[in-house]
Amino acid sequence: MIIQKSATPRIATFDPQNFSFGDTFTDHMIICEYENGKWGDVKLIPYGPLPFTPAMMGLNYGQACFEGMKAYKDDEGEVFLFRPEKNFERINKSASRLAMPEVTEEMFLGGLKALVDMDREWIPQGVGTSLYIRPLIFATEEVLKARISNKYMFAIVATPAKSYYTEPVSVLISDFYSRAASGGVGSAKAAGNYAASFYPTQLANQQGYEQVIWTDDSTHEYFEESGTMNVFVRINDTIYTPPTSEKILDGVTRDSFIHLAKRRGIEVRIEPVSVKKVIEAQKDGSLKEVWGVGTAVVTSVFRALGYKGEKLELPTLPLEESFALSLQQDLVNIQNNKSEDPFGWRMKVGKEVLQDA
Amino acid sequence: MIIQKSATPRIATFDPQNFSFGDTFTDHMIICEYENGKWGDVKLIPYGPLPFTPAMMGLNYGQACFEGMKAYKDDEGEVFLFRPEKNFERINKSASRLAMPEVTEEMFLGGLKALVDMDREWIPQGVGTSLYIRPLIFATEEVLKARISNKYMFAIVATPAKSYYTEPVSVLISDFYSRAASGGVGSAKAAGNYAASFYPTQLANQQGYEQVIWTDDSTHEYFEESGTMNVFVRINDTIYTPPTSEKILDGVTRDSFIHLAKRRGIEVRIEPVSVKKVIEAQKDGSLKEVWGVGTAVVTSVFRALGYKGEKLELPTLPLEESFALSLQQDLVNIQNNKSEDPFGWRMKVGKEVLQDA
Ligand SMILES: Cc1ncc(COP(=O)(O)O)c(C=O)c1O
Ligand SMILES: Cc1ncc(COP(=O)(O)O)c(C=O)c1O
Repeated sequence: MIIQKSATPRIATFDPQNFSFGDTFTDHMIICEYENGKWGDVKLIPYGPLPFTPAMMGLNYGQACFEGMKAYKDDEGEVFLFRPEKNFERINKSASRLAMPEVTEEMFLGGLKALVDMDREWIPQGVGTSLYIRPLIFATEEVLKARISNKYMFAIVATPAKSYYTEPVSVLISDFYSRAASGGVGSAKAAGNYAASFYPTQLANQQGYEQVIWTDDSTHEYFEESGTMNVFVRINDTIYTPPTSEKILDGVTRDSFIHLAKRRGIEVRIEPVSVKKVIEAQKDGSLKEVWGVGTAVVTSVFRALGYKGEKLELPTLPLEESFALSLQQDLVNIQNNKSEDPFGWRMKVGKEVLQDA
Repeated sequence: MIIQKSATPRIATFDPQNFSFGDTFTDHMIICEYENGKWGDVKLIPYGPLPFTPAMMGLNYGQACFEGMKAYKDDEGEVFLFRPEKNFERINKSASRLAMPEVTEEMFLGGLKALVDMDREWIPQGVGTSLYIRPLIFATEEVLKARISNKYMFAIVATPAKSYYTEPVSVLISDFYSRAASGGVGSAKAAGNYAASFYPTQLANQQGYEQVIWTDDSTHEYFEESGTMNVFVRINDTIYTPPTSEKILDGVTRDSFIHLAKRRGIEVRIEPVSVKKVIEAQKDGSLKEVWGVGTAVVTSVFRALGYKGEKLELPTLPLEESFALSLQQDLVNIQNNKSEDPFGWRMKVGKEVLQDA
C-alpha cells in the first residue's frame, strides 16, 4: 500500500458533538485504479478531488456500485468493523452484475482497515455514533460508447455519523412505482437503483409519507423492501421477511436480525409477504410491528402504512414488547462492544494496521 | 454565454480519415452548474478534466441522464442538427423521472449550437459520418446520503463519428434478463439503465449474439427494445413496433421511421409485439425483416433471432426490397441535406452562432 499522509489535516477542526453527517469527510481516502485488465497499487491519500471529464463512463452509463458500512468506537476507544466480509462479498456480487471487475480482499478489507486506522480520531464515541464508510467502484474510461468500460476506480471515503435514533415513520405501499425488475439489478447495490427511487419517494413525501414500501413491479402484491432498507413484518409473535432474490438487496442488517431473532427464540419466516396479508392483519389487530432495517439507522419503526388512499395506523410498542427495538438493541450492543459477540461479527481494527501496510 | 477558447487546440492533429470514435473529443465542451435552486452561466470552455471527489452523488446514486444526437456536414460544408428539440424534450423527461432539475432551451439548444459552431472543423464530411454529441446532466453534490442532490452539472461533449454502416447482426431474445421494470425508469435515458444491460449483453455475446432483444420483465412474452435501439418487425408488408411506455425509450429514430414509413405508404402498427407472433411468422415465412433503430447506426438489420436454444434465420433483403434499408436511406438523406426536408427536421447551425452568443 502506498501511503501519503495529508499535509493539511482537518481533524483539529472536527467537533464530534457538532458536525454535519454525510458531507464532513475524514482526512484521507483509499483509491486504486484498474487498467489493462488489472488493479494497480492501493493508495491511502488525502481526501480530495480527482480530475474527471464529463465523458467518464461511470457518469454516462452508470457502471458504479457501492457499499455502506460502519466502524464503531467502544468506551475504551477501541475500533471495530461489523461483518466487513459480508460487504466485501456483496460489492463483488454487485460488480459482477454490472460487468465490472471484482476487487481483492487486500483492496477492500486492507483498504478499510488502513483508512479507519489512519482516521480513527474522526470516529465519534458515544451511543449510536460511528464512522460511516463508503467503498465504491466506478468506471473511469473516457469513452462515449455504451459498452463495458476498460478502466475503473475503487475508492473508500468516510464520514462521521451521528446517533442512529429516528422517530417512527409513515410509509406508503407502492402500487405503481417499483425499484427493481425481474431479471434486473435490484440485488446489486448499483448506483442507478437509488436515482430511480428518488422521484417516487418525493411523491410519497408530498402525500405525507417518509418512505416507500417497494412491491413487486408486475403485480404490486408483495413487499420487497422499504426505502433503502429490508423490511420485516410481525404478525402476532412471528416475524416475516421476503426471501432475497435478484430483486432484493441481501442486507447485512437483515441477515443479522434473522440470526438475533432466532437466538431470542422468535419464529422467523422467510417467505413472500403479501400486501393483502399485512392489511388483513392490521384490520384484525394481529399486525404488531412493521419495520425497516439497514446499516444507517439499524431499525426504522413504522407507525402507519399508506395503501390506496387509506392510512393504516400501527401500534407503538415499548422496548420490552417490541421485537424491532429489542433486536436493534441486541445488534447495537454487539456493534459497540457492549455485549458478547456470539457470532463473531466484530472485527477489531488494531493500531498496528498502518505499520503492517 | 461565457466563452473561453482553447489555447492549445488539437484540431490540427485530427485526421478525419483516421480517428477512433468515442474517445476522440473535440476541443471544447459546454458546462453549466446548478446550485441554490438555479442554473448558473452557460460556459463554452476547453474540453478537459474537472475536479470531482469519489463522494460525488452522481457516481454514488446514479442521478445522471444523457442524450445522444448528431450533427451532419453536407457537401457544401453546411452543418445541421437533426430534430434537436426532441432530445431537449427527452432530457427533461429523463431529468424529471430522476428528480433532477430540467435544463432550459438556452442551455440545451443554445449550448449545442455554440459547441457545434465552435468545433465545426471536427465534423467529418462524407456519407454516414457525423459528429456524435453527448449532452448530460449529473449530480455533483458531495454527500453520502441517498437523497436528491442539490447540485448538478449540465455538460455537452462531442466526438467525431464514422460511417454508420454495420453488418447484419444476430440477436438473442431475452427470457430471463430485463432492461426495465414496470413503474421503473426504462423510458428515461438514465445512466443506470445502461450499466444494467452490460452483463446480459456479455452473456449473449458469449453465445454468439451481438445484442439482446429485451422483453417485458414479468412474462418475457413481448418485445420491448433491442440493445440500445428501438425495434421494428416486418411481417409480410406491415411493420410493427411496440408502443412507448414508462418501460421503453421514446426514440427519435423510431418516431422518424414511423413518419417515413407512412410517407412511403407502408402500413405501420404501433402495438404490442409478441415473441410468439414473431416466431410463428418466422416459421411460416411471413417474417421478412426485424431491425433496430437508433441515432448511432440508424438501422441495425438482424440476420438471426436466438430464442430458447434455437437460432431462427432471417432473409437478407436487397435495398429495393428492404423496408429497413429504404427507410434508413430516406432518413440519412434528410439528415445529410441530400433530399427535401418534408417534416422540417433539419436545423442549420449557422456560422454566426458564436457572434450572437
Ligand atoms: C436498497 C437497500 N436495501 C437494503 C439495505 C440494507 O442493507 P444493509 O443492512 O447491508 O445496510 C440497503 C443499504 O443500506 C439498501 O440500499
Ligand atoms: C435504450 C435506448 N433505446 C432506444 C434508443 C434510440 O433512440 P434514438 O433514436 O433517439 O437515438 C436509444 C438511444 O440511442 C437507447 O439508448
